[in-house]
Amino acid sequence: MSRTAINRRVVLARRPSGIPTPEDFVVDEVAIPEPGEGEFRVRNLYLSVDPAQRGWAADVANYSQPSPLGEAMRALAVGVVEESRHPEFAPGDHLYGFFGWQTYASASAAAVLRRVDPELAPISTAAGLFGINGLTAYLALTECGSPRPGEAVLVSTAAGAVGSLAGQIARNLGCRPLGLTGTSDKVRLCVERFGYAAATNYREDDLDAFLDREAPSGLNVFFDNTGGPILDRAVRRMAVGGRIVQCGTASIPSWNPPPTGPRVEREVLTRRLRWSGFVIFDHKARFEEAVRALDAWRRQGQVTLDEDVTDRIEEAPEALASLYRGENRGKRLIRIG
Amino acid sequence: MSRTAINRRVVLARRPSGIPTPEDFVVDEVAIPEPGEGEFRVRNLYLSVDPAQRGWAADVANYSQPSPLGEAMRALAVGVVEESRHPEFAPGDHLYGFFGWQTYASASAAAVLRRVDPELAPISTAAGLFGINGLTAYLALTECGSPRPGEAVLVSTAAGAVGSLAGQIARNLGCRPLGLTGTSDKVRLCVERFGYAAATNYREDDLDAFLDREAPSGLNVFFDNTGGPILDRAVRRMAVGGRIVQCGTASIPSWNPPPTGPRVEREVLTRRLRWSGFVIFDHKARFEEAVRALDAWRRQGQVTLDEDVTDRIEEAPEALASLYRGENRGKRLIRIG
Repeated sequence: MSRTAINRRVVLARRPSGIPTPEDFVVDEVAIPEPGEGEFRVRNLYLSVDPAQRGWAADVANYSQPSPLGEAMRALAVGVVEESRHPEFAPGDHLYGFFGWQTYASASAAAVLRRVDPELAPISTAAGLFGINGLTAYLALTECGSPRPGEAVLVSTAAGAVGSLAGQIARNLGCRPLGLTGTSDKVRLCVERFGYAAATNYREDDLDAFLDREAPSGLNVFFDNTGGPILDRAVRRMAVGGRIVQCGTASIPSWNPPPTGPRVEREVLTRRLRWSGFVIFDHKARFEEAVRALDAWRRQGQVTLDEDVTDRIEEAPEALASLYRGENRGKRLIRIG
Repeated sequence: MSRTAINRRVVLARRPSGIPTPEDFVVDEVAIPEPGEGEFRVRNLYLSVDPAQRGWAADVANYSQPSPLGEAMRALAVGVVEESRHPEFAPGDHLYGFFGWQTYASASAAAVLRRVDPELAPISTAAGLFGINGLTAYLALTECGSPRPGEAVLVSTAAGAVGSLAGQIARNLGCRPLGLTGTSDKVRLCVERFGYAAATNYREDDLDAFLDREAPSGLNVFFDNTGGPILDRAVRRMAVGGRIVQCGTASIPSWNPPPTGPRVEREVLTRRLRWSGFVIFDHKARFEEAVRALDAWRRQGQVTLDEDVTDRIEEAPEALASLYRGENRGKRLIRIG
């Protein structure tokens, strides 16, 4: 047993209606979990705060079952194995996986997304640049976006954890990344830090004028994390043969009932679009390839992910809520002391 | 000069508002065209009547420029070269291409889609089974649909020229084709003649009950020629990793302004769909491969396309209008005597 005999948890107390709020969670303390046969105990080092948690907290299954009420909120985390009853995981192993918003987890192999080499880079990077944010940016862009040098790649939530990496990766691949974000500060960050050729504030600026100027031949790739009215306009600005990568739908607060929008069938047909949905957990087989590519760029200073770290686990729900308000500056993480 | 000294044409007289009607055309007779330098004269044998002509007649460019007013309506046809001023086309060559709704055309190489072997099969097949109908069914299904044996493949306009072939091809590839069509007669044709495992009349039957029964694990491929409310329902019945092939949007009478429908972003994302637009003219490089595959099945009696032939060129506009009313029985062709 190390450090403390209790497990501090942020528990999902009720199903959020729409975006999760701090009132949907309670913080408690319980005995640290004992691993059962085939399990191992992880001491968490960094807890991840991700937009996908909204879907995990909801009561409708989408690509996974709902996070159970009364348990630590489903979350990704980086941790170190302390005790193991599984032959493939030994004390001292660093892992990235579904270890929950809690200080300790008892986990099985199915919870692990990847093994972390603690010598490669600061350990926090395992939950961001080399976690689902960087893996999504790299694999969604390369697998579904099929970007070619010189092509115009529009990214929504361009200054977010995934978006800021998608911009840098597109730039590194020789594309012309264009960013959509929600404040003028973030527009500046996009251009100055995240490799975008140009960026605009979709809340205030004229999006059509921006695209007329920056992508006069149309968009070859739209890396979309928002859906909704931004998507409606981008679909009509795609070049023939363009690819839309649907990585998120952050702009739509509720899908029950499904909101309506302009039909897209004619755009898909006449522009010969390819519109793909991307969920990172389908792509484990390519995680290590993606980490190698991202790390090579990191070492050359060609890719960076800002981290926004707090040490207070009880702030996790508010950190999550702030993501949907677009208030984060980079990847939100909770450091477990 | 053969047979007659005049060229009989069905001329596009005005832009249709929505679906083309016979009033949008006039029939005239002009001197037969003399081929210019680099051109050749084709005597048409079969004129094709295709749903895509609605788009060609409209005043909005989509994947091609509008068919010019005052000229023979843009149309595909099978013809034979009579006189040539182009080194690659000799009198007697049989060709399939954009030769228009007329008895003679002066054409350039750009108008030709493929050379036709008149010994392979009855010449009319060049405009149907081996024309854009069969080529679309084969290439859209295999390239964009990526069908695997045992998968459920839903086809809309299932008894039409493209749809009836898509069903037979899906069956030949080991899939489970399911047909949507608009009359009980056509439901019977789908099952008895076109290889469908099951079919339903979407106008009268309970589509959800049909899909519950026939595709309980969801749809792996939706080969869609309609868009609109049928698409809205099918999108929500796709299996994870399903593919939607958008080959047409026959159910939507006008796109100006775009009609609205339930949003699809969440479906694309959580079901990890791949939704592709398909226009046959992008795929010339694979036409001969498709013809070989279709002909092998034809010789084994595994694929057939009903033909609905008239000898009266002046009936072409009404034949086109009847397509959109779903009244055709197979491929509509005009035989030039």
